Amino acid sequence: MKKIEHGGALDRAMSQYGGVRSDWLDLSTGINPEPFHLPDMSSDIWNSLPDEGLLTKALNGARTYYGAAPATAIVAAPGTQALIQLMPWMKPSGEVAVVGPTYQEHEFCFAKAGWAIRHCSSLREIPVSAGAVVIVNPNNPDGRSVDRADLLKLAEEMANRQGFLVVDEAFADMHPENSLAADAGKKGLIVLKSFGKFFGLAGLRLGFALTSPETGLFLRERLGPWAVSGPALAIAAHAFAGGEALDAFASRLQTRRKLLSEVLAAHGLMEIGGTALFSLVRHEQAHGLHDSLCRQRVLTRKFEHFADRLRFGVPLDRNDADKLHLRLTLALRAAQADWPK
Amino acid sequence: MKKIEHGGALDRAMSQYGGVRSDWLDLSTGINPEPFHLPDMSSDIWNSLPDEGLLTKALNGARTYYGAAPATAIVAAPGTQALIQLMPWMKPSGEVAVVGPTYQEHEFCFAKAGWAIRHCSSLREIPVSAGAVVIVNPNNPDGRSVDRADLLKLAEEMANRQGFLVVDEAFADMHPENSLAADAGKKGLIVLKSFGKFFGLAGLRLGFALTSPETGLFLRERLGPWAVSGPALAIAAHAFAGGEALDAFASRLQTRRKLLSEVLAAHGLMEIGGTALFSLVRHEQAHGLHDSLCRQRVLTRKFEHFADRLRFGVPLDRNDADKLHLRLTLALRAAQADWPK
Repeated sequence: MKKIEHGGALDRAMSQYGGVRSDWLDLSTGINPEPFHLPDMSSDIWNSLPDEGLLTKALNGARTYYGAAPATAIVAAPGTQALIQLMPWMKPSGEVAVVGPTYQEHEFCFAKAGWAIRHCSSLREIPVSAGAVVIVNPNNPDGRSVDRADLLKLAEEMANRQGFLVVDEAFADMHPENSLAADAGKKGLIVLKSFGKFFGLAGLRLGFALTSPETGLFLRERLGPWAVSGPALAIAAHAFAGGEALDAFASRLQTRRKLLSEVLAAHGLMEIGGTALFSLVRHEQAHGLHDSLCRQRVLTRKFEHFADRLRFGVPLDRNDADKLHLRLTLALRAAQADWPK
Repeated sequence: MKKIEHGGALDRAMSQYGGVRSDWLDLSTGINPEPFHLPDMSSDIWNSLPDEGLLTKALNGARTYYGAAPATAIVAAPGTQALIQLMPWMKPSGEVAVVGPTYQEHEFCFAKAGWAIRHCSSLREIPVSAGAVVIVNPNNPDGRSVDRADLLKLAEEMANRQGFLVVDEAFADMHPENSLAADAGKKGLIVLKSFGKFFGLAGLRLGFALTSPETGLFLRERLGPWAVSGPALAIAAHAFAGGEALDAFASRLQTRRKLLSEVLAAHGLMEIGGTALFSLVRHEQAHGLHDSLCRQRVLTRKFEHFADRLRFGVPLDRNDADKLHLRLTLALRAAQADWPK
């Protein structure tokens, strides 16, 4: 089975191109470079098994923050990945339609579990034989967004044929208009939420499934008790209740995203999509530019099957944006000398 | 399916008996009440996905600390529980022999996955039809220990009949003499290690499987990438390399255990087993004593099916041991007035 090349592999880049961590500008992920400020944590949070009170507090916070209805089940997992791993085991294997190109772990996990993968570029291409559908909304890496109404119709169709629809909303925090969170309690629908990306705390490993009570029970049983660490639950409860600090945090992310667009525009790089956390750029020699940027100690995300796309994460601040500007100038200059005329 | 009553449920005890957290002496778990001191953690540990370098460092530390051979696969999981959940999926379901009575999550997970449970009170009772065997060594709650040589023979038998043996060494840190860690690379053998109990960091969620490369691959694929949080990996790498600090830490745990035995002996309570982290006491009216201790704000662990057993975790220090002494005096006095003569 093929291996997936993930972003965030700064270690690999350093071993290939040299330099130490502090030399590099790592824009290879879709993770907010500013971590939400951590609360004070009692030593009990580390010492004891995460208790029911702590879990309930985090889940209640998630319900309010994501806007899930009271009857919707919310399941906490050690990262959305742990939930992605379980999706293929919801029903006996069959055909799964993956609307893409998109984040590869979905299809990878379904394939490992014996499902046949049907690649679809839009909802219209989903075959009626599909027992499961996966869509990332907004999509990674191109930011393509599918309307709520269309997804709700699809969820109903899937439920009617005893199948299920997985909507991965890992990048929806800043784009709530098409989120299905409010409807996630419906039969046959599973909405996945990533805590670490928007909150800049991917190291914590925390994700949520918003779903029907029946599916919630299945997922909780597969994950078992104490699936999520005490610190992750305590930090999530704190962050979800962030109030004005949360608004200011979101606003700083918007500023970051604007800085990124300005730098890209200044170099004539065309943004063809993205979300609040990354931009997808079209460039004839994207792989060459990726390599050239690595030589300048900037790590971006290239795509094996898309030789003309490059994904840029957001810079932390003006200082990092200026660094990116300078290094892009050098990288483009060096690369253009090499590229075929 | 029945629900398991776990230790550590101080919340439930408070809602039933009253008091706030600081009033209580929680001896209901087998977790070291002293957390190993945390290292300084860079904000990167929280912000980024746990990288390969960090994972490798923690796994190398685990290999040395547990004494696993170079060819043995080591898999990190968000708590031993996450590994216990996966054991029944290693092979098609059949019969599993559980040597017990023991920690109930093993049989619970196998039963949910469709396995037939055979309860055995010793290795001799394991039926040849068993496709899997689970043994906790030393056992929880009675501390019963099975010899390495016998377990190695059993592991070989299980491998010969295409089955597997799970040895849960959650409480073996202070009792390494019968550990199979050094042999865990053998086919059909899985040794489980809990990080949080001895190191007093159960909130972290970290456990390891020591096993054959083939089984290691299966477990890693089921868990998926970034299964363990960055803080957990950083803290484990730090703790495993603890050197003299680790020796002193272990020695303080021994002192704690001695304090517990002294208090129990002073009240004529008979210890019938245990490990460095807990003592199992035999008492005619164990459930009554549990209730009476709760009224004195001491939480111990009772067992539904063993009306004459009570498990005591270790007190943190002399101060907590003195508290236990006083409260045991009051609890026994109050209880004896109620018990049938």
